Amino acid sequence: MQVLFLGTGAGVPAKHRNVSAIALKRLNKKGSIWLFDCGEATQHQILHTTIKPRRIEKIFITHLHGDHLFGLPGLLSSRSFQGGEEAVTVYGPKGIKTFIETSLQVSSTYLRYQVKIVEVHDGMIIEGEETHIEVGKLDHGIESFGYRIVEKDQPGELLVEQLKELGIQPGPIYKKLKEKQTIEWNGSKINGTDFLGEDKKGRIVTILGDTRLCSRSIQLAKNANLLVHEATFERGSEEMAHEYFHSTTAHAASVAKEAEAKELWITHISSRYIEEDGESLIAEARDIFPNSHLANDFSETGIITRENT
Amino acid sequence: MQVLFLGTGAGVPAKHRNVSAIALKRLNKKGSIWLFDCGEATQHQILHTTIKPRRIEKIFITHLHGDHLFGLPGLLSSRSFQGGEEAVTVYGPKGIKTFIETSLQVSSTYLRYQVKIVEVHDGMIIEGEETHIEVGKLDHGIESFGYRIVEKDQPGELLVEQLKELGIQPGPIYKKLKEKQTIEWNGSKINGTDFLGEDKKGRIVTILGDTRLCSRSIQLAKNANLLVHEATFERGSEEMAHEYFHSTTAHAASVAKEAEAKELWITHISSRYIEEDGESLIAEARDIFPNSHLANDFSETGIITRENT
Repeated sequence: MQVLFLGTGAGVPAKHRNVSAIALKRLNKKGSIWLFDCGEATQHQILHTTIKPRRIEKIFITHLHGDHLFGLPGLLSSRSFQGGEEAVTVYGPKGIKTFIETSLQVSSTYLRYQVKIVEVHDGMIIEGEETHIEVGKLDHGIESFGYRIVEKDQPGELLVEQLKELGIQPGPIYKKLKEKQTIEWNGSKINGTDFLGEDKKGRIVTILGDTRLCSRSIQLAKNANLLVHEATFERGSEEMAHEYFHSTTAHAASVAKEAEAKELWITHISSRYIEEDGESLIAEARDIFPNSHLANDFSETGIITRENT
Repeated sequence: MQVLFLGTGAGVPAKHRNVSAIALKRLNKKGSIWLFDCGEATQHQILHTTIKPRRIEKIFITHLHGDHLFGLPGLLSSRSFQGGEEAVTVYGPKGIKTFIETSLQVSSTYLRYQVKIVEVHDGMIIEGEETHIEVGKLDHGIESFGYRIVEKDQPGELLVEQLKELGIQPGPIYKKLKEKQTIEWNGSKINGTDFLGEDKKGRIVTILGDTRLCSRSIQLAKNANLLVHEATFERGSEEMAHEYFHSTTAHAASVAKEAEAKELWITHISSRYIEEDGESLIAEARDIFPNSHLANDFSETGIITRENT
């Protein structure tokens, strides 16, 4: 998996930071993309990347403020125009269904694919083939959610050398062992489980919507390989952050630290900060949580690898 | 008055042509801007111009297809964020009210100004202090309208030399004469009307929504100083244009010619045409109507001047 930031500003678009959108590249066989938030002109940002809109299979909206939402009708329309035929599922707070349905109906937009809309609530689990996702309600002026994406563990590699020592050579039998079946070999029973390395632990990516500092964020980010947390304001503006239901760099970093996350990316940066302020903003976070990164539009994380347990 | 093209593409945004939006700079004392259509990322385009969103006092939506509409909620929000406090009026087809109200409500958007929404119909007249606007229904897949903006004539200049010959010197009396009042001077009655040059004729600007070639366009564009007409396709694609409810370069130029307009700008250019195709597209129009221009994003017409009748 890998995260590509499509819009990293707060509230209104600026020349160098568009409003919020984040692409999670699953890097799986299907090349699936999951989108988190879809501020206005997200589809325009995508034009400058290698992302194909038809690859977007899930869209998670954290909350319904316009800077996280208003690009959705256009993106859905263009996805159809550009050949998207597979269904897309949109997750978001109550109200998302009305917004999508009204926008498409008023504009007489015909889509060549199905849009499934799921309104989320605190504690909801979204169970998939390869992942399960926990939805948690944060602390913002309106309902705002965070998504904890947990990949299911994968079985370890087959211990080929040990099998060869027993005289078992590669072939269809290896497939059975990998599937943890029991086979007969020279009169003895061989159980696949005994010839598999340790499970490869699924990765955890936590992407949070706009929020004040809150304990729910820490729960959602627990041991995450990657945490994306908003940092609208600089350290020292904690009062203002509280008043506007947002976080500072220090808040974001303290969540990463408490949660024992491995890596933090801060985003949703107020337009009061210019490009030159980037260094001090990220230094503030690193003071508390060293592996912190500042997201700019089109920043990309490294590929998040599976590790053994 | 002067027209600035903010988005000149058709259907979906491309790197070099955004979806539809046109700014009519009134160049009056208030510096008012009228916007025609508001495709997604119109507010982003505005960031690259000198237009202040708070100066936008009227927004005319020609039709509700997403590429003419989906930038509206974001623009309205940002206009408030950037200090807009004066009311704005949005004109558009039936459905515009539902779209605006749903978008603002779902996103909990609070505006610091009033939005008046007027749903238009064929033949409607919008009467203002300085202009009257005729609304005409065109021929498109969904209801699509054109707007003919007619400035009211202004009284001519005071004939100062003739007044001086009568011994009437500049002063408060000139103001009365300019207002066409009758005054007493050396025992005779002097009527302001007799000492004013010819009326300055109001300018006519016609901006049409997406349409097939139709007679209503010609009526709306009659004697216009400036006509903006869509030209989605090149000459020779008339059948396709008909099928998709659009026009070709030749259609647009023939409307300008029939209407005896003074100047034509074509816009809403399909993304099938690349930058290099611009010359041949405009040549096709000029074959029929010589004073034709191709609109690109950020193209600006000359200032349209008032002429004497």
